[in-house]
Amino acid sequence: MSFHDNGALASLAPRVSPSPARMSSTIKFGVVGYGYWGPNIVRNLQGIENVEIAAVCDKSSTARRRVHKNHPQIYVMTDASEVMTSPEIDAVAIVTPVWTHFELAKQALENGKHIFVEKPFTSNVRQAEELINLAQRKNLKIMVDHTFVFTGAVRKIKQLLHEGLLGKLYYYDSTRVNLGLFQHDINVVWDLAPHDLSILDYVLEQSPEALVATGQKHLNGLEDIAFITLYFPDSVIAHVNVNWLSPVKVRTTLIGGEKKMLVWNDLEADEKIKVYDKGVEMDSREGLYELLVSYRSGDMWSPHLEQAEALRHELTYFVKCITDGSNPFNDGAAGLRIVRMLEASTKSLRKRGALVYL
Amino acid sequence: MSFHDNGALASLAPRVSPSPARMSSTIKFGVVGYGYWGPNIVRNLQGIENVEIAAVCDKSSTARRRVHKNHPQIYVMTDASEVMTSPEIDAVAIVTPVWTHFELAKQALENGKHIFVEKPFTSNVRQAEELINLAQRKNLKIMVDHTFVFTGAVRKIKQLLHEGLLGKLYYYDSTRVNLGLFQHDINVVWDLAPHDLSILDYVLEQSPEALVATGQKHLNGLEDIAFITLYFPDSVIAHVNVNWLSPVKVRTTLIGGEKKMLVWNDLEADEKIKVYDKGVEMDSREGLYELLVSYRSGDMWSPHLEQAEALRHELTYFVKCITDGSNPFNDGAAGLRIVRMLEASTKSLRKRGALVYL
Amino acid sequence: MSFHDNGALASLAPRVSPSPARMSSTIKFGVVGYGYWGPNIVRNLQGIENVEIAAVCDKSSTARRRVHKNHPQIYVMTDASEVMTSPEIDAVAIVTPVWTHFELAKQALENGKHIFVEKPFTSNVRQAEELINLAQRKNLKIMVDHTFVFTGAVRKIKQLLHEGLLGKLYYYDSTRVNLGLFQHDINVVWDLAPHDLSILDYVLEQSPEALVATGQKHLNGLEDIAFITLYFPDSVIAHVNVNWLSPVKVRTTLIGGEKKMLVWNDLEADEKIKVYDKGVEMDSREGLYELLVSYRSGDMWSPHLEQAEALRHELTYFVKCITDGSNPFNDGAAGLRIVRMLEASTKSLRKRGALVYL
Amino acid sequence: MSFHDNGALASLAPRVSPSPARMSSTIKFGVVGYGYWGPNIVRNLQGIENVEIAAVCDKSSTARRRVHKNHPQIYVMTDASEVMTSPEIDAVAIVTPVWTHFELAKQALENGKHIFVEKPFTSNVRQAEELINLAQRKNLKIMVDHTFVFTGAVRKIKQLLHEGLLGKLYYYDSTRVNLGLFQHDINVVWDLAPHDLSILDYVLEQSPEALVATGQKHLNGLEDIAFITLYFPDSVIAHVNVNWLSPVKVRTTLIGGEKKMLVWNDLEADEKIKVYDKGVEMDSREGLYELLVSYRSGDMWSPHLEQAEALRHELTYFVKCITDGSNPFNDGAAGLRIVRMLEASTKSLRKRGALVYL
Repeated sequence: MSFHDNGALASLAPRVSPSPARMSSTIKFGVVGYGYWGPNIVRNLQGIENVEIAAVCDKSSTARRRVHKNHPQIYVMTDASEVMTSPEIDAVAIVTPVWTHFELAKQALENGKHIFVEKPFTSNVRQAEELINLAQRKNLKIMVDHTFVFTGAVRKIKQLLHEGLLGKLYYYDSTRVNLGLFQHDINVVWDLAPHDLSILDYVLEQSPEALVATGQKHLNGLEDIAFITLYFPDSVIAHVNVNWLSPVKVRTTLIGGEKKMLVWNDLEADEKIKVYDKGVEMDSREGLYELLVSYRSGDMWSPHLEQAEALRHELTYFVKCITDGSNPFNDGAAGLRIVRMLEASTKSLRKRGALVYL
Repeated sequence: MSFHDNGALASLAPRVSPSPARMSSTIKFGVVGYGYWGPNIVRNLQGIENVEIAAVCDKSSTARRRVHKNHPQIYVMTDASEVMTSPEIDAVAIVTPVWTHFELAKQALENGKHIFVEKPFTSNVRQAEELINLAQRKNLKIMVDHTFVFTGAVRKIKQLLHEGLLGKLYYYDSTRVNLGLFQHDINVVWDLAPHDLSILDYVLEQSPEALVATGQKHLNGLEDIAFITLYFPDSVIAHVNVNWLSPVKVRTTLIGGEKKMLVWNDLEADEKIKVYDKGVEMDSREGLYELLVSYRSGDMWSPHLEQAEALRHELTYFVKCITDGSNPFNDGAAGLRIVRMLEASTKSLRKRGALVYL
Repeated sequence: MSFHDNGALASLAPRVSPSPARMSSTIKFGVVGYGYWGPNIVRNLQGIENVEIAAVCDKSSTARRRVHKNHPQIYVMTDASEVMTSPEIDAVAIVTPVWTHFELAKQALENGKHIFVEKPFTSNVRQAEELINLAQRKNLKIMVDHTFVFTGAVRKIKQLLHEGLLGKLYYYDSTRVNLGLFQHDINVVWDLAPHDLSILDYVLEQSPEALVATGQKHLNGLEDIAFITLYFPDSVIAHVNVNWLSPVKVRTTLIGGEKKMLVWNDLEADEKIKVYDKGVEMDSREGLYELLVSYRSGDMWSPHLEQAEALRHELTYFVKCITDGSNPFNDGAAGLRIVRMLEASTKSLRKRGALVYL
Repeated sequence: MSFHDNGALASLAPRVSPSPARMSSTIKFGVVGYGYWGPNIVRNLQGIENVEIAAVCDKSSTARRRVHKNHPQIYVMTDASEVMTSPEIDAVAIVTPVWTHFELAKQALENGKHIFVEKPFTSNVRQAEELINLAQRKNLKIMVDHTFVFTGAVRKIKQLLHEGLLGKLYYYDSTRVNLGLFQHDINVVWDLAPHDLSILDYVLEQSPEALVATGQKHLNGLEDIAFITLYFPDSVIAHVNVNWLSPVKVRTTLIGGEKKMLVWNDLEADEKIKVYDKGVEMDSREGLYELLVSYRSGDMWSPHLEQAEALRHELTYFVKCITDGSNPFNDGAAGLRIVRMLEASTKSLRKRGALVYL
């Protein structure tokens, strides 16, 4: 299990430059699902060299009409099985509701296609494990669409943590709230928390030991507000606040370390990340009640971030992994780690907040 | 048990106008503790009619010198017992560390003095109950210093909820984080959460059924970051995020209701409270997967708030309660309710987050 | 000369519903210029019923390739004269640099085409007058693209002022600064100020009596920072701060009135407009030095704004005007009023800030 | 004429350490005026070593009662002449309306007292010159209370400009607006602009060549909104926007340079100053219309600022200048430079905005 991207991204140019021998080999994609996120997948795939979109498929006639209007040249299908069995197609992007991921992914893998699966990977751990095994046997690639870890902000955070700028890590506290969009098949944890959990998985390079999730249902029988505490090794604590019923949109993460502290506000146009030279020092020579606490407050620094579209990065990377046979760091195993946390959250939520070991 | 203030505050003028018969009776205060908060108590008491500060007491000679410099005319004492036993003194303000509250309060009550006690009331439920019983037997008043419920913002929130402006309540989500000030005897929950818990107690007019608290210690053996989920009746959920290790100061509360939603940002100079005409409506005629969700988004409104100093309000109200024999709504019972939640939080924290019934 | 829109917009549906007799008549557009703004014109025209884009024209081969890539079905031309003389074309959108507007517009009108001209209308007053006369003789419509007056924010401001909510108007103070985009043929006043001047013209329904403009050139021989004060009747004063060299983007307008005051921050996602119940009252009974000044501070209110794209609104309105023969309020005369202010600004700037009467 | 502070402040310790010979000599102050700003002068003088407040004087009995309540030990006077002629007093702080400054200052100097005068120094240039001459003849010190140049923010800005961090300076653009406080004897320019003008004088170390001022009167016959453009050598332009009728308080200054750009928001609790690594570069090899413009956007940096109270710094510095005979950089000449700009602004305002050379 590798949490590292091994510098793979560092060398990512916007367009892949494969070796001459491979120049001829175009990757042909089928895209299943053209709802909220599918159009972004299609638009970005179109801009990548050596990629061809063989077909886009959606059960809804409205969605199919939309594909045709936006991309008159793309072939449109109704039945996903057609995509899965087409000998023309090398890789399938599965951009459908979570509960359909397993069956679609399984069919794709069985038919020898690499898969790019929308987050969260599957509805449960068992499904994820089965898909990973299947892909391994078939020598196929799985990439789970954890788009956020391809943003300039998250990559900068990982870099700063990796370089030790913040010192020993204390906590990671994320608030991700807004009004809607209500999902019909999954609660707010399965909808919004995969972003935070995949970022945590990526930047901390560790798995949590245990978690506690609390929340409440108000409208459609699914939790619309929830809070997850994750206990990591070495006293690192993470907290995720997700809410579909907030009047204001908030996307703020505080990261506290021994040496420095960081605030990531993803809604800022510029200055998304601010690094504070602030800290607390304890001097316990005098015993507990005489403990000397000193506070350090210095400059603030906001690093310039790469502006490129994260999804373009990610899909280019997927094509590169297929082409050169390397394994993506956001592979099925990464998808499984997130699903395991989500499953544990559900278990904890059912008990209104119990400690669940992972 | 009454959560209501019964309009007592509505009629609060900055200065009490007691009946002629009582005009002559000045309330003589002793103030024990002149550290961080004590100077505010002294300054505000001085501005209230019919109040006289008979003595200020502190064990620290530095603190005593500070009293003398700021208020050369005030009598300064070293030993709290002197205050407690002085026949000159009618009421004592106890503004010392939490672990000293019980002994000081007990001595004051036994000597026939009304008490104004810094929050949190006591170190545990048993102490609070003993003090309440003692005060009742002695026919003395206890007021616990839940200052925030006397601010213009909290009083406006209570009013809006009471009037039903937000409709059925969904959640209350507070973030109260900053750098320091580390306490030596209590963790961040006992230090910062009493503000949120006393506000919840005041505006919801209900007690939680259960709670879950998670957190972590990084520096001095006491939790410096913690998260509390409180389950109230009727699916109302509250969450409190407290943190001594944040690089930025945040004092933001989201309150979601069926009809409207409210954001209270206490750091805004103006526009502390914003009421959003936003909401979600479900139409389930078509069954779960066809559930129609509609979002409503209208005007935003920020009510003008009263600017007066909360502590002045609170102390004036205390003097009024002593003078006319009425019971303050932030009495010992209110203090006990907060201590009960804090004690439950400690219990839950020790198990790294277990559901604790109240 | 009419500053009013006479409710024309109020009845604007996203799609025009002309009388049955006209149903068959499609308006055929030629678009000249496919640089920064042209693509938005093309995209929006495509969504309007009874509109057909007959051709898009640009001198640059890069631009022409871009048209073809985005809209493979649209006919692309190199020479603007071809558009102007085509018998197929009813109306021309001129989306080219300012110094080319006059010649292109003249040719279009002479060939019997209605014109939609990018702001500012022309390079000087004389040109604008000539085009207005020509259009009148030919019975053709001119619309000048003052897009901002079709935004939800500006229409709401006009409505609030019109209803008298702010009381007697005192001032209008706009800041419109950012980094770049430097223009090669016009200075920052001709680039950015047309937005503010056309908004002023629209919401105040008055022309200024005189203006003073100051500024400075630092890089390419054209002013990159400038300040314009406009004196309107009845002591109304307006100020416009435009700057291409600001590290931060600001789009904020303060509008002060006797009864209320308004802040419009166009960079806010929500709450673009805030109306403050604030004011100053003078009581001069006692003579100048005893003047009693009282300040009023009440609630703040942020009205919900229409979210539709302004340019869609504007182009739909242009088609409606062509179809039913009505005159747009943002006609050649409106364009001329803005050019007159710009010309006066240039005159004032050359003298480093002299009062120029209009 | 020296704009430099010659490092005098760098060595300022909170408390002066005079040479042994002078240790015994306490500076005795009289304070004339105890309105809005006087209490701050008194409070800060009290904290400075070797300073004694001999008397505070105010014509208003309400003000005198306030002195007595806050400082029972300080001697209170009614008649300013008493202060001016008292042999006990070494230095006088004149904290009264502008129109009274000249007479009071003259009387103080004639009686051999050093003077600390509230900004603006005098009502006109002639008065300022007369006072400077008088002080020179009498070998007395004049300090004009330009408090802002003693703040951590302004001192940091001066340092950064001095070090050349921003490169060649382009512009300085300040907005200083709020609701009230209306002055009865001076307009908004004389009330608010002295802050900006004294900061400009201090950080640019240059005097403007000319200025243009525009504005409008709405309420009490004095301008309540005004805009000043100042032309400095080398194409540096400054702009000051002052307004008593704004619903929101703004204290923001943009400073643009060739290499970097700076934003100073004085209302931010932290991060008052942000330095942006942004810029524009022109490459004119290709001729005007082919001018290549490139934009640079890098990190942002917010330096930590000194938190000490500016007025304490300033008064300590005044005492030091009296004690060691050195000349303060904010002396009568500095005060005169500001008054000269104010006088020119008035002249320009009367013509509704004319270029006035200085």
